[in-house]
Amino acid sequence: MCIRTLQRFLRIKRQLIVKLYISGNSPYARRARLAAREAGLMGMVEEIIISGFNELVKLGPGGKIPVLITDDGHSLCESLIITHYFNDLSEGKLLPSDPVQKGKCLALESVASVLMDSLFVRSMEKNYREEKKRSALVLEKEAERSRRCYESLAEMVREESESVSLASIAVAASLGYAGWRTPEDNWREGRSGLESYYDRLMERPAFTETMPRY
Amino acid sequence: MCIRTLQRFLRIKRQLIVKLYISGNSPYARRARLAAREAGLMGMVEEIIISGFNELVKLGPGGKIPVLITDDGHSLCESLIITHYFNDLSEGKLLPSDPVQKGKCLALESVASVLMDSLFVRSMEKNYREEKKRSALVLEKEAERSRRCYESLAEMVREESESVSLASIAVAASLGYAGWRTPEDNWREGRSGLESYYDRLMERPAFTETMPRY
Repeated sequence: MCIRTLQRFLRIKRQLIVKLYISGNSPYARRARLAAREAGLMGMVEEIIISGFNELVKLGPGGKIPVLITDDGHSLCESLIITHYFNDLSEGKLLPSDPVQKGKCLALESVASVLMDSLFVRSMEKNYREEKKRSALVLEKEAERSRRCYESLAEMVREESESVSLASIAVAASLGYAGWRTPEDNWREGRSGLESYYDRLMERPAFTETMPRY
Repeated sequence: MCIRTLQRFLRIKRQLIVKLYISGNSPYARRARLAAREAGLMGMVEEIIISGFNELVKLGPGGKIPVLITDDGHSLCESLIITHYFNDLSEGKLLPSDPVQKGKCLALESVASVLMDSLFVRSMEKNYREEKKRSALVLEKEAERSRRCYESLAEMVREESESVSLASIAVAASLGYAGWRTPEDNWREGRSGLESYYDRLMERPAFTETMPRY
């Protein structure tokens, strides 16, 4: 306990600043931005819009958005690692402390994560790949995976409270992205519980503020 | 502190068992298996080999390996979520408690994670996609990403201690996968520090035991 207090004191003395490199429309960046806001860390997070690929690979070998540069100069990529890092920095504001509730939260987060990846794969396939090389099979397989995720999310959020967590952040960032990249999925159709869960989240300042402008 | 002791007691009483669904050669599954072993949790983890896709989607909508079913019946996918969950269950055996060391560890883990994904994308492209739909552009872009990751890992492990963490687990699972799927990368060549770091890890029982049989 004494060490933690000392660490906290040293952080304040050092005016801990972490740098979060983002782009406007990336759902992965949005996830990190939401976590920073909802964890109450914006006083120590500097958000910087990445200007191009050359700048991005200077920040780390991944070449993926977002990247977090810690106060000690470590470069973290992978939105899951960054959001959990923010949760740690806030001493656990974004995850329940009760083990059963935490397991439930991580289960929801994991489905939302798979959905985000599935939507991303579909977007790359449809929008960035050479036209002749697009695969109907891959698109079909991923559309099916997305559909299974929507169904699960609709089921899982039924009992979800209003509290914001790493799970609700991942759900919102994924569904927001779906609305842009795969409107044909009509994820709201027949899923009124999921729709109202999402719409309630969208009323929060953090979610409005990070809304991508497509 | 009192609540934690009580929770621990209740867990022992309930004989907490989690079920980890795996397949033999998945680097993502291996990552989870390594984490369970190195966290000292094998007394409560039952490993089950998945027999097919139908069984897999019954465990959760992701349709990806591995899946962890918690004691409370929650289904977790995403190897990152599962390995961090194991770290929590072991009360932090797989991550340093010092914030600076932890940041460094997460930075290494994030590069290894990106490498694993990059190798996976290349493997899907080369081995599972319709031949006509394979893209030289995608393969080239990902090979370049993998190369940047090898370079970074070689740099980053220079100062790494022998201690096992979520980072070394991710590094080992990724490089082991590279040896199988992209031998043409020759990741060992000109990277003797990374090579000896990997080879030292391979001497540990957890790593030998989970070695895929390609």
